Amino acid sequence: MTFRTSVPLTEEIAERINALGQIGRTENGGVTRLLYSDSWLSAQTAVKKTMEEMGFSTHFDDVGNVFGRVEGTEERDRVILTGSHIDTVVDGGKYDGAFGVLAAMIAVSRLKQEYGAPKKTIETVALCEEEGSRFHLAFWGSGSITGRYQLNDARTVTDGQGTTLEDAMHQMGFGQGKYPPARREDIACFLETHIEQGQILEREHLAWAPVSHIVGMKRIIIRLSGQSNHAGTTPMADRRDALYAASQMIFDVVSHAKEQSNGLVATVGQISIRPNVGNVIPGDCTFALDVRHHEYDVLHDFCTKELENFRRIAEKAAVELDIKTWLDDAPVKMDPSMTERHGKIAQRAGVPFKKMVSGAGHDSQIFGVYCPTAMMFVPSHDGISHSPKEFTRIDDLATGVRMLMKILHEMAY
Amino acid sequence: MTFRTSVPLTEEIAERINALGQIGRTENGGVTRLLYSDSWLSAQTAVKKTMEEMGFSTHFDDVGNVFGRVEGTEERDRVILTGSHIDTVVDGGKYDGAFGVLAAMIAVSRLKQEYGAPKKTIETVALCEEEGSRFHLAFWGSGSITGRYQLNDARTVTDGQGTTLEDAMHQMGFGQGKYPPARREDIACFLETHIEQGQILEREHLAWAPVSHIVGMKRIIIRLSGQSNHAGTTPMADRRDALYAASQMIFDVVSHAKEQSNGLVATVGQISIRPNVGNVIPGDCTFALDVRHHEYDVLHDFCTKELENFRRIAEKAAVELDIKTWLDDAPVKMDPSMTERHGKIAQRAGVPFKKMVSGAGHDSQIFGVYCPTAMMFVPSHDGISHSPKEFTRIDDLATGVRMLMKILHEMAY
Repeated sequence: MTFRTSVPLTEEIAERINALGQIGRTENGGVTRLLYSDSWLSAQTAVKKTMEEMGFSTHFDDVGNVFGRVEGTEERDRVILTGSHIDTVVDGGKYDGAFGVLAAMIAVSRLKQEYGAPKKTIETVALCEEEGSRFHLAFWGSGSITGRYQLNDARTVTDGQGTTLEDAMHQMGFGQGKYPPARREDIACFLETHIEQGQILEREHLAWAPVSHIVGMKRIIIRLSGQSNHAGTTPMADRRDALYAASQMIFDVVSHAKEQSNGLVATVGQISIRPNVGNVIPGDCTFALDVRHHEYDVLHDFCTKELENFRRIAEKAAVELDIKTWLDDAPVKMDPSMTERHGKIAQRAGVPFKKMVSGAGHDSQIFGVYCPTAMMFVPSHDGISHSPKEFTRIDDLATGVRMLMKILHEMAY
Repeated sequence: MTFRTSVPLTEEIAERINALGQIGRTENGGVTRLLYSDSWLSAQTAVKKTMEEMGFSTHFDDVGNVFGRVEGTEERDRVILTGSHIDTVVDGGKYDGAFGVLAAMIAVSRLKQEYGAPKKTIETVALCEEEGSRFHLAFWGSGSITGRYQLNDARTVTDGQGTTLEDAMHQMGFGQGKYPPARREDIACFLETHIEQGQILEREHLAWAPVSHIVGMKRIIIRLSGQSNHAGTTPMADRRDALYAASQMIFDVVSHAKEQSNGLVATVGQISIRPNVGNVIPGDCTFALDVRHHEYDVLHDFCTKELENFRRIAEKAAVELDIKTWLDDAPVKMDPSMTERHGKIAQRAGVPFKKMVSGAGHDSQIFGVYCPTAMMFVPSHDGISHSPKEFTRIDDLATGVRMLMKILHEMAY
């Protein structure tokens, strides 16, 4: 279905967001579209069909990214790429990723209707995966395009059921050479619109934000091994209580992050203990520490100091400590000249905006080390994301699409 | 099989412990016999058969306790009851409960062989349940005998699968009046031998302990409700992190217990958070606090102060706090004259002993408020219990049986 530009933009956005949000809809009113699941394939197929209806020439690549191309009249070798990801977390919202895909499609479709073919070729994209929700590997879509990942990387990564990424991909018909390879050399730049997933824009009554940096992030797994023992018969002095040691570590690291007030955030979002029985001293505790900042030195120094403190705590509690850093991503700077220019466009359009740092990871950080990349945020109501409650007001969504139209118009026409 | 008294006691104990430990044996070398499970019924049936081989007259009662009776020549209306429980925790050891059952059987069988019928009637018992491992209700065996529980109480208690205690009981043929009611009015006294489940006897090179008190215990469930949110996009100052608040509470309460040095013990052995995902701030956290002491005032005052501190922490962290006390058991004093006499018997026998407080709950605390009750410990190697690694040296087990024989001989012959 193509919406004529005479149809209000808000109406088109609402209809498309809701239609896509039906695919993989959960009983809680959320959306679950894990990579290479049936709902994922339905969504990518629906997106491809819509792109065709919009008059874009479409194709899947070999990892399942979907592209819709509008050929430029002057520049065809280099592509302005815009879009976001189609996958979701379990029971996520209908805006995260999806809005960036649809914003790109709607913007390009409306530009084409209004101004005809662009001078420079534009492609809209629904990237196959960003969340890392099914496999412990994120950015499979953008990573495959930019060369961060190769098909071989899919062999050793498994999901919770033990299925490899490769097998899951094959089951959906991808990864076997039926489609063009994912790797691209012709991307001139990448633009991604996304919901903020935080409360800053809403609280400050702003409508839009060009993103200056995507934070660097460390994910560190802490394993503590003490001694399980009877909660009644083991004197306090004889205990090697792994949860007691963990509680001190968690309290300290979060408190220290609070004291920083430089934008650094530290979260322990995952914890498990064994045997996890009320009357047994926990012998084992594992927790995951997530720390983020947009300057790598600040991030690294904080983690180094905290891990030193963890070592002291573990020693005092007679608990063995094992530290595994399984993610150590440097911050990524978005293209400063694009960020600057986009701010000016917002200013001229009278859109209240501010430059922001993205605290969340996005495909733009993968593109950002490979080609000039611009990312822009629209507000998230109450900052809620990864939840059925995720919501952005339709006017804010429309502002996001209009800004993308203005930017693409300036770049490609 | 009956062992003649000419067979060494150690040999008989080892054989019986190992035979019973085969029933419900796990792949880790532990034992799982949850109430009203198949392995539980096999164990009770095997115990009943052994009691018959020993020449005791046996019966099940209506909740599944198994009794083996040796009729007294002079006193038949009143019964000296001795034994312990047959059920185990998941993957527990082969001594906890089981040794007390077998010690009673072996002691009475050997007394009978050596001295014939006692003057006073003795019954040995394998209580059906003590651990509270399948249902959130402990002491179902002793509680049913002493009137703490009625059959009706089984209707509302469910296991992890949603099966009621009543249904589970019916499935095994109990609770329907096929057997004599569990409630007894003829118990003169109760004696229970048990492994210490702590390290004190072993560390002090002692072989045996009459127990003076069983500690009082509070189990308190703490529920914290904050706000789940994105770990990257939510500034530290805006967080309502339930695990952060919990970590401070756990650290404080355990630290304060350590500072007491009056024998009080405090344990957080169980914790869960939601959504328990590395990149999401935990909105909900529930943990279980277990506090024990042998003086109720000390126990109560400690908990009152700690809960006040929890309230302050919750308020500061902007987290809602819900406190549920689901166990509030006063300490139970064992019969002081029996404890005294048993100490003298140990002294005469040259058994190195000391009076102890039991930090663990036992059936003796249920009997202790209903009839004169004596409890006695044998050492636990490394204090390990509720584990496949649970172990007591055979010489220590033999001392336990010999002490029980001496005590029963003095009481009943």
